[in-house]
Amino acid sequence: MDERSARMSLCALQSLGNPQLSELVAVHGAVEVWEAILGRDAESTWGRRASIIEPGQLVSDTHKCSARFVVPGDEEWPDSLDLLVGARLSGQGGPPLGLWVRGTVRLDELAGSVAVVGARASTSYGNHVATEFGADLGLAGRVVVSGLAFGIDAAAHRGALSARHETVAVLANGVDSAYPVAHTSLMEGVIARGAVVSEAPPGCRPLKAAFLARNRLIAALTDGVVVVEAAARSGARNTASWAAVLGRHVMAVPGPVTSSLSVTPHRLIREATATLVTSVAEVIELLSPFQPELELPLQGEDRPLDRLPERLRVLREAVAPKEEVNVSDFMTRTGLSVPECLAGVDELVELGWLEQAGEAGWRLPGRRR
Amino acid sequence: MDERSARMSLCALQSLGNPQLSELVAVHGAVEVWEAILGRDAESTWGRRASIIEPGQLVSDTHKCSARFVVPGDEEWPDSLDLLVGARLSGQGGPPLGLWVRGTVRLDELAGSVAVVGARASTSYGNHVATEFGADLGLAGRVVVSGLAFGIDAAAHRGALSARHETVAVLANGVDSAYPVAHTSLMEGVIARGAVVSEAPPGCRPLKAAFLARNRLIAALTDGVVVVEAAARSGARNTASWAAVLGRHVMAVPGPVTSSLSVTPHRLIREATATLVTSVAEVIELLSPFQPELELPLQGEDRPLDRLPERLRVLREAVAPKEEVNVSDFMTRTGLSVPECLAGVDELVELGWLEQAGEAGWRLPGRRR
Repeated sequence: MDERSARMSLCALQSLGNPQLSELVAVHGAVEVWEAILGRDAESTWGRRASIIEPGQLVSDTHKCSARFVVPGDEEWPDSLDLLVGARLSGQGGPPLGLWVRGTVRLDELAGSVAVVGARASTSYGNHVATEFGADLGLAGRVVVSGLAFGIDAAAHRGALSARHETVAVLANGVDSAYPVAHTSLMEGVIARGAVVSEAPPGCRPLKAAFLARNRLIAALTDGVVVVEAAARSGARNTASWAAVLGRHVMAVPGPVTSSLSVTPHRLIREATATLVTSVAEVIELLSPFQPELELPLQGEDRPLDRLPERLRVLREAVAPKEEVNVSDFMTRTGLSVPECLAGVDELVELGWLEQAGEAGWRLPGRRR
Repeated sequence: MDERSARMSLCALQSLGNPQLSELVAVHGAVEVWEAILGRDAESTWGRRASIIEPGQLVSDTHKCSARFVVPGDEEWPDSLDLLVGARLSGQGGPPLGLWVRGTVRLDELAGSVAVVGARASTSYGNHVATEFGADLGLAGRVVVSGLAFGIDAAAHRGALSARHETVAVLANGVDSAYPVAHTSLMEGVIARGAVVSEAPPGCRPLKAAFLARNRLIAALTDGVVVVEAAARSGARNTASWAAVLGRHVMAVPGPVTSSLSVTPHRLIREATATLVTSVAEVIELLSPFQPELELPLQGEDRPLDRLPERLRVLREAVAPKEEVNVSDFMTRTGLSVPECLAGVDELVELGWLEQAGEAGWRLPGRRR
């Protein structure tokens, strides 16, 4: 049996993210480890599982769904995954023994990619933000990585696809089928314009442990993770923790404090685990501080009055609505001299900030004109 | 002329927050400064303004609106204002020369008070949050300080009043009348259960400079400032800057990134000028770290499945909807031994997580029951 199919078989042991297994393989090689496990008595967990694994079947299943199985040493294997050597979080860790990939994007093309993750039961606000971020990240030339789940994940993938840009889904189940099934066509779109990636063999259903193991891959494969909406208990929090463990940028988009889905983003920011981001421009600024800044849309009130020179603004603000003001009023209210008042008032009339009222008075411009 | 009415007259010079004036008074005393200004020729700004000020009128106006004029040395004068000596922000600074006060709360009772400030053109979200914060701060025994303006200010005052707690409004105009006029009855409510405070004499209309000068008083009189909603250009940002200059706690409540009124709170947090706060409990925790923590409402998803012991959850998650599973399925999917599976499955049936299906099978509980 060769190294590659030994790694396939070990991935089928339902021990994804098991650090001991990846360490054993690092020391003894996949073939030796696989044969040792096969030799174990069937009362041991791995022995029992191994006894029902058919390596040949795994190979044909891989071909059947036109997937490729990428292992360390392959040209496509990304250095970023080496970060997982020795990395631990709640009992999981270590690099994957191999990754099944379907699609046009290669794993070694994910440098600079950004993950957008969040709640499955997201709100329209969260979906809107995730879609915008997905699209804007695509326009900024960043591959959008997520988990193909309901809610924020799907919105991020769709945003990238809507901008005709690449997006990659890292799955907890096999790359042969979509989980949830409702995302079968979304997964086809992702494969057509990006890739789906999994550490689990084709045909494998997702268990909870696999989701957590998957989160470490999202954090390792990307330059940063953006959490959009996530409740107190959330897989996105686990992904953020992995990103922090691996020294990736952790970012969180705030939301209404009245929403339980703002709890995790706000906690991550309060703990200083995450940087608050409100736009992709801020994400890029964080990931590539020396890149020329993207154009941020101008936000906030527009107060032309504040742009008047001080001497003019003081005069303008000395006039109350529906009030007629003469030179001596201006003098006592502003402390300016007669010539200063007259010069300023003339300018304000010219600019349309005041209008003449009778012989020696001025008032605010009426609406009637 | 006595010191007190000299200070009143100097407050009428329309130079609120002028640091030179407060320094002159600190060095020479109010009477000497006032007489020197009176003696100036009428071409100088202060001279011209002084020439039309009637000290006797100021005293009677003060009595007329049943206000008291508090000056340094009075028992009621708060030490907190000494922080303003030498403090500068965009050309303003220095302690007030005196403060007009109407109401039952004394200036020296404001230790521990919290300011809630924000946009005039606030949203229902901001109004809701400001009202909740005003009420909860009141319940936490904190005096709520704000500026009586439309929007966030009014919501904060009303929240405190709704909780039958004290609230103080610091005005940019005289304490004899409300600005905006629409808040006349709100101001009466504030006076009845708190106080209105101003550096400007009765009868004085608010100029822009007076609003900025007022902001330094809000920052100085409180232990911390909470910014709820504020656009990019906002007086609340000036108040937050004053709080930062004076070493007060600056706090900001996040909001939807899709709202232009979230720009200033999010910027303050990103700049690390402000701490992100989502509740009054977090405000109190920040202001009084050694106080017993307030009860936070439980937020976020409730996922009972996550509370099952690991061995049970693994078994439960091995079963897909509408599927019937037997012992060997459980064994291969979970890697547990026969006795482990049987014991766990029995517990899950007892807990209602699984139900018997025929002789040797189990499934997820149907809805029909």
